[in-house]
Amino acid sequence: MDKKKLILIGGGGHCKSCIDTIVSVKEFEIAGILDIKEKVGESILGFKIIGTDEDLHRFPANDYYFLITIGQIQNAGLRKGIYEKLKSTKCRLATIISASAIVSKYSTVGEGTVVLHGAKINAASNIGENCIINTNANIEHDCKIGRHVHISTNVVVNGGCVVYDECFIGSNSVLINGITVAASSVIGAGAVVNRTLIEPGVYVGNPCRKIEK
Amino acid sequence: MDKKKLILIGGGGHCKSCIDTIVSVKEFEIAGILDIKEKVGESILGFKIIGTDEDLHRFPANDYYFLITIGQIQNAGLRKGIYEKLKSTKCRLATIISASAIVSKYSTVGEGTVVLHGAKINAASNIGENCIINTNANIEHDCKIGRHVHISTNVVVNGGCVVYDECFIGSNSVLINGITVAASSVIGAGAVVNRTLIEPGVYVGNPCRKIEK
Amino acid sequence: MDKKKLILIGGGGHCKSCIDTIVSVKEFEIAGILDIKEKVGESILGFKIIGTDEDLHRFPANDYYFLITIGQIQNAGLRKGIYEKLKSTKCRLATIISASAIVSKYSTVGEGTVVLHGAKINAASNIGENCIINTNANIEHDCKIGRHVHISTNVVVNGGCVVYDECFIGSNSVLINGITVAASSVIGAGAVVNRTLIEPGVYVGNPCRKIEK
Repeated sequence: MDKKKLILIGGGGHCKSCIDTIVSVKEFEIAGILDIKEKVGESILGFKIIGTDEDLHRFPANDYYFLITIGQIQNAGLRKGIYEKLKSTKCRLATIISASAIVSKYSTVGEGTVVLHGAKINAASNIGENCIINTNANIEHDCKIGRHVHISTNVVVNGGCVVYDECFIGSNSVLINGITVAASSVIGAGAVVNRTLIEPGVYVGNPCRKIEK
Repeated sequence: MDKKKLILIGGGGHCKSCIDTIVSVKEFEIAGILDIKEKVGESILGFKIIGTDEDLHRFPANDYYFLITIGQIQNAGLRKGIYEKLKSTKCRLATIISASAIVSKYSTVGEGTVVLHGAKINAASNIGENCIINTNANIEHDCKIGRHVHISTNVVVNGGCVVYDECFIGSNSVLINGITVAASSVIGAGAVVNRTLIEPGVYVGNPCRKIEK
Repeated sequence: MDKKKLILIGGGGHCKSCIDTIVSVKEFEIAGILDIKEKVGESILGFKIIGTDEDLHRFPANDYYFLITIGQIQNAGLRKGIYEKLKSTKCRLATIISASAIVSKYSTVGEGTVVLHGAKINAASNIGENCIINTNANIEHDCKIGRHVHISTNVVVNGGCVVYDECFIGSNSVLINGITVAASSVIGAGAVVNRTLIEPGVYVGNPCRKIEK
């Protein structure tokens, strides 16, 4: 079977993680990368930067899939904006799940979301669109993750948690069972979230506390 | 070969994680779930709640295996009580190890214990009966884990540690090399246990300190 | 194909983790272990301690590979000294990568380095010689790890980090994106390294702070 042609949008570090995962799944072949004008012609792990997001019209929606490979630290705005642009032009987004990730057959993963190496999504959980479920992240049973959320490396989201849209959950942090995190919240690396966070904000530490940022 | 018939006791969230693991191993088929009377007739991921623990006698010990799928946060009493009831009636408990877990051939896992997705048990370690070794937990070499212990998600138990009976080791906490944790202790999520804990209690933080609870 | 004969140097706890990994890869057969004189004749997981490092000359460099299986907590001196002795006598060091580890094809791993179960090395990262990349450690994209470094269990080294020679990065600690850790630094278990550490030292806590030691 022919592989599906995939255009990556964003040629930075996160793009490399995505490429490593995409080549593990064999469903897609990378047709090229889009980035800023100054980087056109460069290569990322052997794949060419072939244009900018002004060139989207060159890739007919029937022939290509797209994946947003821009990273997301804190603010989800950039990834969300591109997602909405792609949707408004009827582009199809790829959903990528690493061959070494484990996604329960009782769970769902939204379009445009990437699940990187060793990440786990346990039973009865739902992951929204355009999320990054990063390497080794562990989302337990009965969770609900919104859209444009980045669950970073080695994060643990325990059973029954809800993470609303556009959150950034920092590396190696942990959410205890059954809590909710307000939309657009930022959780610092290594934080322990031991209660529901109703108010959006930046939270760090063990137990986590809100800081100005 | 015919699969072994398995009865699950407890139909909550942890049961879902267990089901996801059981269907990965192909050794057992789930014959039904027992829970409280009010839930009889409901389904968990497509498996029926067919009775309560008053119905154990309906499942002859020669024909069925049992797994306790009640979760364990803090107190081990409930899981321990059911375990003792099963043993007193000569029931056989299943030992379940996820297809994606890694258990050293130089180690042992007690009956009634479940080792969930991606968990690791390194060489020369012994895990007791009726434990939960949760998703991504990592038990290193030369450890001894007692009975009725819950090693929660993403916990690290480093080499040469001893965890006595009925402990709860919270999500993403870490025990440094060669320490011992007293029976019935509770370690909070994200705690760093950097010394032997002789006195049972609730310990949280980095480094961990005892709190009243 | 005949397996390559491998001599292990060091018969303690870390040696057991190494054996568990070596038997997973099938490329090498363990020909014996070297340790102190008092332990000669003992067995580690069924493999004999057959001599001390005074006996290296008995194992011709053309016929044998070597792996240093001494652990490394804090000080790298012992492992480094043996490494230099082996190199000065033209011995070949094995590079061991667990069957369950994931090492990107876009990355490199130096000789004498062991990558244990479930560890991950993402794209465009380089790992130096004689390192321990311990169970479940996660080294993200674009990292550079020096020589004689121990990245302990469940550590996260996020994208673009540099860890200089002879560091010990403690269990379950996390380095945020793009930071550098000075040579010979010691990072405590569970520490959150949220900035570049220019000065060598011992760092613990969240966020990490330097302590006297």
